[in-house]
Amino acid sequence: MAIDNSWYTEECPEGGSAFSMKLKEKVYEEQTPYQLIEIYETEFFGTLMTLDGLVMLTDRDNFIYHEMLVHPALFTHPQPRRVVVIGGGDCGTLREALRHPDLHTVEMVEIDERVTRVAERFFPELCETNNDSRARFHFTDGIKWVADAAPESCDVIIVDSTDPVGPAAGLYSQAFYASCFTALGAHGVLVAQSESPLYHLDLIKNMRSAMAAAGFPEVAHLHFPQCTYPSGWWTATLACKKTPATGYREHAAAQKTFPTRYYNHSIHKAAMAAPTFFLEALS
Amino acid sequence: MAIDNSWYTEECPEGGSAFSMKLKEKVYEEQTPYQLIEIYETEFFGTLMTLDGLVMLTDRDNFIYHEMLVHPALFTHPQPRRVVVIGGGDCGTLREALRHPDLHTVEMVEIDERVTRVAERFFPELCETNNDSRARFHFTDGIKWVADAAPESCDVIIVDSTDPVGPAAGLYSQAFYASCFTALGAHGVLVAQSESPLYHLDLIKNMRSAMAAAGFPEVAHLHFPQCTYPSGWWTATLACKKTPATGYREHAAAQKTFPTRYYNHSIHKAAMAAPTFFLEALS
Repeated sequence: MAIDNSWYTEECPEGGSAFSMKLKEKVYEEQTPYQLIEIYETEFFGTLMTLDGLVMLTDRDNFIYHEMLVHPALFTHPQPRRVVVIGGGDCGTLREALRHPDLHTVEMVEIDERVTRVAERFFPELCETNNDSRARFHFTDGIKWVADAAPESCDVIIVDSTDPVGPAAGLYSQAFYASCFTALGAHGVLVAQSESPLYHLDLIKNMRSAMAAAGFPEVAHLHFPQCTYPSGWWTATLACKKTPATGYREHAAAQKTFPTRYYNHSIHKAAMAAPTFFLEALS
Repeated sequence: MAIDNSWYTEECPEGGSAFSMKLKEKVYEEQTPYQLIEIYETEFFGTLMTLDGLVMLTDRDNFIYHEMLVHPALFTHPQPRRVVVIGGGDCGTLREALRHPDLHTVEMVEIDERVTRVAERFFPELCETNNDSRARFHFTDGIKWVADAAPESCDVIIVDSTDPVGPAAGLYSQAFYASCFTALGAHGVLVAQSESPLYHLDLIKNMRSAMAAAGFPEVAHLHFPQCTYPSGWWTATLACKKTPATGYREHAAAQKTFPTRYYNHSIHKAAMAAPTFFLEALS
């Protein structure tokens, strides 16, 4: 069959594969100082946002990614109050974090304000908590923001970044993780999206090493499906200053008072189980 | 970018999506009385077999599917000796089953002998145990074979079938599951591939109902990534005559004496954790 321009296609050269979604129409395009934002309506996945031609999110499956980036990390910290989100301009991560009623602040540090403004227009449900009094927006460079943050000034840092190329490359470096380590309190938790276990094992290994070198004694990986990202299988990597990275507040997770569609207590535990080839690659 | 004929593409109409693999070349094609077999060499996934234009397996990722179809079911039965594989002509399922040293027989019931002959040529590693004295090949209709089987004559039935269209449709029916129930011994276990939790929830619900109506009191679902199948996320559905479907021989799984690349004791348990939307759809 022919994949023509009635489809949106993202090729993944390192995987020798491509994923396509059938389109209704392209509805928006904007070149910002940082990147090209495009919005499409698809047949099956609802609204799609791409940045520089790479899938960021769709209506249909973003819940898996956002829930898995946020809830395991927040239930790992013993008492999270002060959360920092680096990237995440679509605000889906912010919304999930704000579901935790005990948070005091979520600092949203996104380099490109236009991503957030476009998300407010095309993904209004993800932005429904943008006016929450606990949310504080900083449209600036996340690497510098964390480096300038006061020591021990936050509990959880969530890195909701694009792939490790271009402006986001620094978010995968030991220097950035060292800034995070300093900015985090005694029981601080860092979590970052970390690509595909099938296509990007070397990246995951490098992140592990960089986080350990930055001072984090414990690193764990969460696995989850993500249909619209390369290989359809994704990870988040979680590093802890003190708490065991695989430990979490199980009772609180089981008794959570907010709705989720993917995450639950059993899924949290299950996401930390690693396939044999993954364990062997990391050992 | 253009997806031209230097790619193999499988469209999934019900998902409004398509998955493509970069090709080196097409190396074989045969129209059998049942289906069109095609073999390609790909850039990243090694050798690819398609049947009637749908991906059956690739060198790179078939281990996940084959291990998850076989090992959870065999560790769920308390003492499996007599296994039946319906379909599975590529012999990857047979090979995984034969890794269990205590099996006495594996009856391979594949309707299309040509699939096995072509697999012997292009996927020799999957066929390396075809001459094991415990393997018995029957190139015939699996539905009829199970219906004709003596009552309580097998311990585990593994349905490694194509999608529920064409000749495989009957393998998703209550009548077939009832034949399996009769053919299975007192602690019998049935496991069947059951498509994507993101795209095919209705099918999974129907399989559940049909298995229950056929007499199985316990049904469980195993979730796993499968990059080259639609949505990249797949399930197997497991039904038990007596054993709890979510219970299994944990000690034996943890102490297994054979190698695997995806499956392990933690993955077995984790694969049974269901996302909230999945639990809600099934309840």
